Amino acid sequence: MTRGYIVPIGGAEKKIRNRAILRRFLAVSGGDQARIAVIPTASKLAETGQLYVDLFEDLGAHQVDSLPFQERSDCTRRDWLKILEQASGVFITGGNQLRLSTTIGGTTVSELLRIRNNQDGLTVGGTSAGASILSEHMIAYGKEGPTPRADMVSLVPGFGLTHEIIVDQHFRKRDRLGRLLAALAFNPRPIGIGLDENTAAFISPTDLIEVLGTGAITIVDPSGMEFSSMDSAHKNAPVSVLGIQLHVLTEGCTYDIPTRKAAHGPVMI
Amino acid sequence: MTRGYIVPIGGAEKKIRNRAILRRFLAVSGGDQARIAVIPTASKLAETGQLYVDLFEDLGAHQVDSLPFQERSDCTRRDWLKILEQASGVFITGGNQLRLSTTIGGTTVSELLRIRNNQDGLTVGGTSAGASILSEHMIAYGKEGPTPRADMVSLVPGFGLTHEIIVDQHFRKRDRLGRLLAALAFNPRPIGIGLDENTAAFISPTDLIEVLGTGAITIVDPSGMEFSSMDSAHKNAPVSVLGIQLHVLTEGCTYDIPTRKAAHGPVMI
Repeated sequence: MTRGYIVPIGGAEKKIRNRAILRRFLAVSGGDQARIAVIPTASKLAETGQLYVDLFEDLGAHQVDSLPFQERSDCTRRDWLKILEQASGVFITGGNQLRLSTTIGGTTVSELLRIRNNQDGLTVGGTSAGASILSEHMIAYGKEGPTPRADMVSLVPGFGLTHEIIVDQHFRKRDRLGRLLAALAFNPRPIGIGLDENTAAFISPTDLIEVLGTGAITIVDPSGMEFSSMDSAHKNAPVSVLGIQLHVLTEGCTYDIPTRKAAHGPVMI
Repeated sequence: MTRGYIVPIGGAEKKIRNRAILRRFLAVSGGDQARIAVIPTASKLAETGQLYVDLFEDLGAHQVDSLPFQERSDCTRRDWLKILEQASGVFITGGNQLRLSTTIGGTTVSELLRIRNNQDGLTVGGTSAGASILSEHMIAYGKEGPTPRADMVSLVPGFGLTHEIIVDQHFRKRDRLGRLLAALAFNPRPIGIGLDENTAAFISPTDLIEVLGTGAITIVDPSGMEFSSMDSAHKNAPVSVLGIQLHVLTEGCTYDIPTRKAAHGPVMI
């Protein structure tokens, strides 16, 4: 019973030349022994699945399959379920995260991902929409801006691989600090992870986050929250949130979720 | 490691004469040996805690205490935590469920309720707002009406005692079928439970629901959902949801969550 890696990526990960994130994803999925399943359901583009199949094959995976679940009835296909049962890594592409939750939520496919990740060491990662869907509480959509406001963010159930985090992606580019703070101001149980583009959080089986990529990861830890006015805020009004711990982490930094400790990487002298 | 009863109540439970729901709550909390803790945090009225203390004492509880957590810092009070550690039943009153999630969410108090309920047999119940807060995904607010619409409902993290259900209360009186369907149309993982006033779902340690009270419980089971248009619905537009199973259960009926089987009570001839 070992939990596998959980790998949310902030979107727009490099697909040519220095493909450090996809390379590392492959490494924690078994390297040249890896059997990767790609789930391109969130994407509107028919070629998305094949794009990632080509990428992971090019990087040296043993086997790569695309499983383009389009209808809920696809989630009972025996041949595709068998591929998921034998996979060592599952990669969920970007697009619309509600396509993922409405098509795959509550099916054998999402249960298989959760159970095999939590108990059987399966690595599960995704980019953009594929990052958001991983946790129990998922940001479905929201508004931009740095100040949290009531009614700024919509949370819905995700695939539930972990309760410890709420993920947001394209973080700096789309100015999403406000909506992540708003999500946490309702109930500061999880921590917030804001992922910049081409930046990944490799969350180990012991819940140690390692940062990889060219942007930053913003950790919003509300465990010491002293006050939130979300219970009395009017629609669109700004919300008070007191006592939030914030870390901005770049490549090489780590964050340990159980102890809530951030550590910087090697310092160049 | 036995899970305790989880008891969501639809609000406005009878407090004089035939107090069947509160009486049964006391019975599954240890009867005349019961140590009841009342959490009146959701309520704006200073007398709410004492009202329930008087009620449960009148019904014969061994010990009843009100724990009026007002600030997040109250959630570290050793004397109140000790009462929760020794309680056999915890009752959460009505009011504003966001007062509960912002004041108690992510603290030792909510973790104690979850862990002692899931592992130590503690009964936890609540009415109205106190019913909504019990599950992992909680309806924070929403709009009335029978047809599900995008943007009709806001979900936020609750206390997380169970993942299996999403609760709505004052169900028929406030015309809330639409918002419960909307909540499930995002991701049909949990089942929906719509509770009428003065009606309770006694959810046993094996997840068998027994209905008690003068109204009905509406079970909305989306596990066979064939399609949801929530991923492409425009704000305020109606949403298609195909293949939902619906049961309306009155006193004496049961519903078994693991097998999704409803059963009616004794039939009078």
